[in-house]
Amino acid sequence: MSNALARPLRLLTIEGGEGAGKSTVVRVLRDALLAEGAEVVTTREPGGTPLAERIRGLLLEAGDEPVHPHTELLLMFAARAQHVQQRVQPALARGAWVISDRFTDSSYAYQGAARGIETAFIAELERRVVGIEPGLTLLLDLDVTHARERTRGRDLLGGVSPDRIERERDEFFQRVRAGFLARAAQHPERIRVIDARPDPDTVAAAALAALSEYRRVHGL
Amino acid sequence: MSNALARPLRLLTIEGGEGAGKSTVVRVLRDALLAEGAEVVTTREPGGTPLAERIRGLLLEAGDEPVHPHTELLLMFAARAQHVQQRVQPALARGAWVISDRFTDSSYAYQGAARGIETAFIAELERRVVGIEPGLTLLLDLDVTHARERTRGRDLLGGVSPDRIERERDEFFQRVRAGFLARAAQHPERIRVIDARPDPDTVAAAALAALSEYRRVHGL
Repeated sequence: MSNALARPLRLLTIEGGEGAGKSTVVRVLRDALLAEGAEVVTTREPGGTPLAERIRGLLLEAGDEPVHPHTELLLMFAARAQHVQQRVQPALARGAWVISDRFTDSSYAYQGAARGIETAFIAELERRVVGIEPGLTLLLDLDVTHARERTRGRDLLGGVSPDRIERERDEFFQRVRAGFLARAAQHPERIRVIDARPDPDTVAAAALAALSEYRRVHGL
Repeated sequence: MSNALARPLRLLTIEGGEGAGKSTVVRVLRDALLAEGAEVVTTREPGGTPLAERIRGLLLEAGDEPVHPHTELLLMFAARAQHVQQRVQPALARGAWVISDRFTDSSYAYQGAARGIETAFIAELERRVVGIEPGLTLLLDLDVTHARERTRGRDLLGGVSPDRIERERDEFFQRVRAGFLARAAQHPERIRVIDARPDPDTVAAAALAALSEYRRVHGL
């Protein structure tokens, strides 16, 4: 199935659970590429266009109505279809780098491994409505205990209450993490696992090193 | 593919374009069943639960951003998955009749025939996230010229501006109509075509007759 996907080399994605430091890594990679005068588009999923951001709102609000796993999956892919068509593909077509905070691997981890939706269904949606996979994916790997400590600190500092998905139990996030690691094992040529436990500077340095090696190998 | 779907006999759906008189037929069938003391749930798609109604809002608002056909399709099925799980299945499970203004046939007509999405993809979503098809579907068939006259009258009376889909051109609605008629030809045992040109009382009488015959055949 994966063979049917195009793999644009300038599409980079950052994956991992909450609290792993994805936004910092997005900024560091962006700044490194900008410093060379490249055009860089940073974006996120679910979201990245006004409509996709509104779908994100539906996904993350904790309402009274239980959200069925299929509803969650299809909302994620509706947002992703819109994001890829309206934002990612046009940027890639004009030669820009695109760095996305989350992409399809997150659906395999959250809706697949954690919510139990069949991988074949996710792969079918990926093939039909996404059609591309990243050239390079950095998976920021963090155990659930460390992740909880960081998001708790952030919630207290920012006064933000956790969203619908952040409210899940530890067991859920353990399945998410296992799902991400399984994806990395299946796609070793594309996904680099970075230990997200060290301080932000160390994680940033590892991310920059992974990008440099990738660019050297592909002559970018 | 269709063989994999369950077909609950008390699930009735009313299909057709805008202006065909679907809401009137929903009311007439509901009143006939209520008069016998049955429990009847009337509902609509996209919508039918608070979350699905919010997805409907995203689908019908005419924003500046073009909505990709895949985005539209997945939002429709996200709403439908939620509707079926949260509203339709529980009602059927307790023995109620469910009458839905639109259901999956609308996706074959609008997103399939009119927007050009492959039927196999729609059938795959139907099989995976809907899992049921109606016992009886009444297709209110109306040519585009008559439908335009009626919706124009309604828009003027109600002061409501047309939504994103209502703003499509005649050619689009001709493809929708052809898509519905093709579905009826493929599922003659389930879909009854009713001429929607006559006055509302005549259409209502035809709908009631179709329901009576269906109940007689199935001993309901």
